[in-house]
Amino acid sequence: MDLIKALEWRYATKRMNGEVVPQKKVDVILGAAHLAPSGIGLQPYEIIVITDQNLKAQILPIAMNQMQVIESSHLLVFAAWDEYSNERIDKVFDYLNDARGFVHQTSDRQRNFAKKYFGEKSLEENFHHAAKQANIALGLAVAAAALERVDSSPMEGFDAQALDIFLGLPAKGLRSSMLLALGYRHQKNDWCLELKKVRKPFADFITELK
Amino acid sequence: MDLIKALEWRYATKRMNGEVVPQKKVDVILGAAHLAPSGIGLQPYEIIVITDQNLKAQILPIAMNQMQVIESSHLLVFAAWDEYSNERIDKVFDYLNDARGFVHQTSDRQRNFAKKYFGEKSLEENFHHAAKQANIALGLAVAAAALERVDSSPMEGFDAQALDIFLGLPAKGLRSSMLLALGYRHQKNDWCLELKKVRKPFADFITELK
Repeated sequence: MDLIKALEWRYATKRMNGEVVPQKKVDVILGAAHLAPSGIGLQPYEIIVITDQNLKAQILPIAMNQMQVIESSHLLVFAAWDEYSNERIDKVFDYLNDARGFVHQTSDRQRNFAKKYFGEKSLEENFHHAAKQANIALGLAVAAAALERVDSSPMEGFDAQALDIFLGLPAKGLRSSMLLALGYRHQKNDWCLELKKVRKPFADFITELK
Repeated sequence: MDLIKALEWRYATKRMNGEVVPQKKVDVILGAAHLAPSGIGLQPYEIIVITDQNLKAQILPIAMNQMQVIESSHLLVFAAWDEYSNERIDKVFDYLNDARGFVHQTSDRQRNFAKKYFGEKSLEENFHHAAKQANIALGLAVAAAALERVDSSPMEGFDAQALDIFLGLPAKGLRSSMLLALGYRHQKNDWCLELKKVRKPFADFITELK
């Protein structure tokens, strides 16, 4: 259960074998995403979990025919808020205060800061911010999957507008930001499996000021 | 070493006790970030690791006087590319092909796709995209820290332009996107420590299409 070893084991799986990921492991992966930190704790995103093969087949052409879409066990769609509306912000803070047994005014300073901060930004900036938070959760999901020895393949190469319409996301105030295919690598078909894992030199990645 | 338990243990630490995180643990945290997946494998970000107390003290007012800045052991600055320039894209692919013993033309399709894709987008869109990738790495760093029982506190509340200038990031073509303070919670001073950890209801977070 060494995270570094797990991350060295993982790779951007291009071909999967269709084997189903046990629900217990899926729960850990989604649970890790659910516990992700986010700006002001707003968790401005949801995850759509798709296991229906027919739905996946319809998403395939929307996602540049990447075979992980249909060969995965679970296709996760990370969908970020299109806007940090006052209603959404209120809902989060009301829920938070209820859960902690506090009156609703408890976090007013943060609540008002959030409304002002996002209210002054464009819708596109709102979405970018929300999608950035979603990627922290995606990072945690990738970590959890690797530790569970489940292959995960993040995908950005898809027609977000088409996927949003297909999944009815606009009515929910959501926009798809990332896909994450969960499944198991196909030992024979995946040309990526044998490729050496390469990251930029550590010295180019880290600068120490001490 | 259960990730869910580790993530339940962690919280957005507001006050730290100054204790130094052992280098071995820091290496695991940075190593996890280094292994993060990124769009087209470009790793469009770097991490500045600050341990110098004098530097941290100068960053404190730039970061809304959040005490984790000076009470942390290591302050990480996630700094994303300001632009996916052709030179940067070429450098990544040349290095990749060298590392795999391939000729430089091997990944031309992906290389050219990347140049066209980012070349058609604004500088601001370039940065947003790079910062999103950086947040996947931040998610992995948070996971690694929690598993190592190191407290981590992501911070967005800072004057990015001022920090960039202070750290000389513009000359490197970088813009700060997130801070991550690493250290140990202050058992007495942190008012956040006793607060119940709250996330939105799982049913509001996950939609299953099966």
